[in-house]
Amino acid sequence: MNLFYIEHNTGSLNKSDEFTLVGQEAIHASKVLRIKKGNSIMATDGQGNLYKGEVVSVSGNSLRAIIEENSFQHSPVPEISIAIGNIKKRDRLEFAVEKAVELGVSKIIIYHAGNSEKKNVRLDRLKATALAAMKQSLRVWYPEVAEEKNLEYVLKTNREQKILIADEKLDPDQINPADFSGNNKILYIVGPEGGFTDFEMSIIDTYDCKRFSLGSYRLRSETAVIAIAALSGLTSF
Amino acid sequence: MNLFYIEHNTGSLNKSDEFTLVGQEAIHASKVLRIKKGNSIMATDGQGNLYKGEVVSVSGNSLRAIIEENSFQHSPVPEISIAIGNIKKRDRLEFAVEKAVELGVSKIIIYHAGNSEKKNVRLDRLKATALAAMKQSLRVWYPEVAEEKNLEYVLKTNREQKILIADEKLDPDQINPADFSGNNKILYIVGPEGGFTDFEMSIIDTYDCKRFSLGSYRLRSETAVIAIAALSGLTSF
Repeated sequence: MNLFYIEHNTGSLNKSDEFTLVGQEAIHASKVLRIKKGNSIMATDGQGNLYKGEVVSVSGNSLRAIIEENSFQHSPVPEISIAIGNIKKRDRLEFAVEKAVELGVSKIIIYHAGNSEKKNVRLDRLKATALAAMKQSLRVWYPEVAEEKNLEYVLKTNREQKILIADEKLDPDQINPADFSGNNKILYIVGPEGGFTDFEMSIIDTYDCKRFSLGSYRLRSETAVIAIAALSGLTSF
Repeated sequence: MNLFYIEHNTGSLNKSDEFTLVGQEAIHASKVLRIKKGNSIMATDGQGNLYKGEVVSVSGNSLRAIIEENSFQHSPVPEISIAIGNIKKRDRLEFAVEKAVELGVSKIIIYHAGNSEKKNVRLDRLKATALAAMKQSLRVWYPEVAEEKNLEYVLKTNREQKILIADEKLDPDQINPADFSGNNKILYIVGPEGGFTDFEMSIIDTYDCKRFSLGSYRLRSETAVIAIAALSGLTSF
């Protein structure tokens, strides 16, 4: 089953209303998947709405459908964000974003850490990866991907959230699962390859962050991101 | 910090004993990392022994060191194995193997499922990936990677283990965390892209397997593997 994305804001639609796929979504549907008039398709607006519709017209880069069924899902609670220091290897960063979204993370922030290598973030590509992962996992909330200039900015602009920092220097026995629940919005911060600088550590100390450990073994940054996503997203475990 | 692998079986060594890196390990140490006589290095035999040694000689493809410190870690309990249906895209399979080992999985089995596309498994490459992940995460137990011809063979040859099957058709509310503990050896089985065939389901029913769900969203096979590895490996969470 394929889930398509309605990229323009339509508000919530109801049965018998019409939605339109445009651009790449329409081209993928018509040219690659050969969806035709009369076929049923699933689509989401990334705002919690899921539609099942019957295709009524297909042109080159536009596909219209009439809604047969509609449902709404509230956004995930807690809302999980993960901030990760920029990773040198792009495929590893893309993989982290893809897996985090599949596992239910709402927002991924890539920040330029003191120990990050100077490297451009291909934000357009990461956003496309995140959107594909949303569709792949049949989720209906558009995942955010953002870039921030440094760790301090991440901390400063997310003060209202519960902030948890993965700290490989922490004794693994100090993990307290209670730290992970009871908050509506949680931001996990993963250090860059090479760890935080002393300056970053001193900034962290001025904010109300809790530290936690992902165990006594050394994990790559992207592994830490995916592990946090699994542990926080699959809460029913 | 780099961890090197001593590939020949030496048995447990003690202080003042000597170990030797050969082949790629020695070349990587001497040519890439430019390790020289007098430097300290860390090495493991993949059998639980961790050595710190002082390099006493470096030649083209051999590096000898005298042990200054040694320690031993028991193999992980429970011992986690994950079986995964062969994945078409090699980079996704390699990523699953790498992350599973980083997160503490002892053995990965790639089986040819009814819905797997016929594609060779590059077992040599996957073993190299697993070994690199062992070293990266500073683990000291050599991770196994195996290929099996089908699901039935996996079930038949692992009867002594607790077998848990990720079943996307299961009601997510049926998850019982108790299923995951209290066993010394656990084998998780992840279905291929496209799910199990009816024939495979009928075979599963003849074995004493427990089914569990990874939630109500659709996860790629490699995501399921990594999520299981995180959830089972980071047990102190």
